[in-house]
Amino acid sequence: MMKVLLAGGAGFIGSHLADALLKEGHQVVCVDNFFIGTKKNIEHLYENPNFIFYEQDLCDFEGVERIFEKEQVEYVFHLAANSDIQASAENPTIEYKNTYTTTFHLLESMRRHGVKKFFFASTSAVYGEKMGEQVAEDTAVLSPISYYGGCKLGSEALLSAYAYMNNMKVLVFRFPNVIGPRLTHGVIFDFIAKMKKDSTKLKILGDGTQSKPYLYVKDLVDAIMQFKDVEKEGITLYNVGVETQTSVTEIADIVCEKMGLKGILYEYTGGRGGWKGDVPKFQYQLEKIHRAGWKAHYTSREAVEKTVEEVIKCRQ
Amino acid sequence: MMKVLLAGGAGFIGSHLADALLKEGHQVVCVDNFFIGTKKNIEHLYENPNFIFYEQDLCDFEGVERIFEKEQVEYVFHLAANSDIQASAENPTIEYKNTYTTTFHLLESMRRHGVKKFFFASTSAVYGEKMGEQVAEDTAVLSPISYYGGCKLGSEALLSAYAYMNNMKVLVFRFPNVIGPRLTHGVIFDFIAKMKKDSTKLKILGDGTQSKPYLYVKDLVDAIMQFKDVEKEGITLYNVGVETQTSVTEIADIVCEKMGLKGILYEYTGGRGGWKGDVPKFQYQLEKIHRAGWKAHYTSREAVEKTVEEVIKCRQ
Repeated sequence: MMKVLLAGGAGFIGSHLADALLKEGHQVVCVDNFFIGTKKNIEHLYENPNFIFYEQDLCDFEGVERIFEKEQVEYVFHLAANSDIQASAENPTIEYKNTYTTTFHLLESMRRHGVKKFFFASTSAVYGEKMGEQVAEDTAVLSPISYYGGCKLGSEALLSAYAYMNNMKVLVFRFPNVIGPRLTHGVIFDFIAKMKKDSTKLKILGDGTQSKPYLYVKDLVDAIMQFKDVEKEGITLYNVGVETQTSVTEIADIVCEKMGLKGILYEYTGGRGGWKGDVPKFQYQLEKIHRAGWKAHYTSREAVEKTVEEVIKCRQ
Repeated sequence: MMKVLLAGGAGFIGSHLADALLKEGHQVVCVDNFFIGTKKNIEHLYENPNFIFYEQDLCDFEGVERIFEKEQVEYVFHLAANSDIQASAENPTIEYKNTYTTTFHLLESMRRHGVKKFFFASTSAVYGEKMGEQVAEDTAVLSPISYYGGCKLGSEALLSAYAYMNNMKVLVFRFPNVIGPRLTHGVIFDFIAKMKKDSTKLKILGDGTQSKPYLYVKDLVDAIMQFKDVEKEGITLYNVGVETQTSVTEIADIVCEKMGLKGILYEYTGGRGGWKGDVPKFQYQLEKIHRAGWKAHYTSREAVEKTVEEVIKCRQ
């Protein structure tokens, strides 16, 4: 059993990881500033004696240092970041602070306090536009096209140096789109919100063919739990995902079906992508993590269906 | 003729670039905080009407913004960084601030003021330890092992996003070890300083076989001047260097010879590298820049010889 620091633990993915870590018997020091994370995501854990919560912005280094001094953790899971790429397209400072600086502060506190184990939530966005089935962890040119992807790749670069200089054992997962209960934004969320307002028509960004692999959050958390005990010093890196994909139009169809709506007019804005900085189609190689013994339980479509049901239920 | 902002223009390489830009008739808005750069490097330019100087720390975003508002520049050359890898090994915050945050602030001001042209001084340190003649710009795994390399790679990642989102034309050079007049630190500088103190023996970090390509600063500045007018949107990236290499023991021999010292005892500390985070041997592919029409004029040994002579003369 370990005492771990979980940064971004009140967020969508972070709160599911908190559940899983507690279930396995670990002590969880959860840190969140409630910018994107919510009290609702973690209030079911408040009574658990193994759950400690700090409302703390990781951009404040002194605050981070105080937590490291008080709580002697041996593992840091870093899931704090700005996860809304569209929002930061207008204001890149959000990424500099919440995605990059949070990573720097955690690594620097780990260095000062001798903490050696780190999990980092990276993203497929580090690859940029040149995606395809040949894109493996070690063969791809890394050319992010969003500030989010840029700051995540910058964080990986920082990690590379910190891991080497301090003999850390680091696990990095590059996430695809992740969905499931407690989701707070993204296309599924938007479609349901729009249809609740006006159930006659649906405005769809792009031409609807943008297609992505959607990974169910519980599958992702299973993978983190399975691989978290890294033996090797340095960085162990995996693309994490699901082989199937779902297009935006398919998602619209699933939303209509689950909401019991028929004959909805889809109004496409046209063009290939949803917005600038969005990668319209992607898939990457999953061989490495499959070989290591993990595969997603749910297909992309199943993940979308389950998520649509949950979001509808939750918003009723 | 252009009006350009030259960040780090009072530094070793920056001040040579200032000379070259002024010689070609451009207006140079030089910005430096004199952390590593010196007044001595630029005082010969104070009378030049095309030279404007701001003493400004680029970590202060408001200060950067004031310069962009006042001076309507069309090109930014970014040579401001912590260039002392050994110093930041003890205090990575130096790199977070002076190498990464300076890049973020310049790019963010460029975005706000519509400046589209950027030159970025990157480094061979982005590649990490896995160096060899097969290491080309687009085939290498990027695994920096120093905080300096990590923050330079992070800057490149940020650049990738800013270039795409704002249609910038960006030139990135990955520099090897660069030497020449106005050099302020590094092995040549250290050896001369040590020999002035005690000319009977010389302590050498590692086993002396660490071997690197040393590029003469004027060769590098020629390359920047030759390639600076990038036509293509996005990032144009070159490894810059020289095909030959010089070992640490050879450098010691050249220093002794130029100082007229004989029979010096070399005391090796042993081990393969000079210090943790140092890449003991490296060479990378230079085909791309050679094909584009540039080659270093001086060999690595010639660069070392000229630099040793200049540093000795300057310190007399």
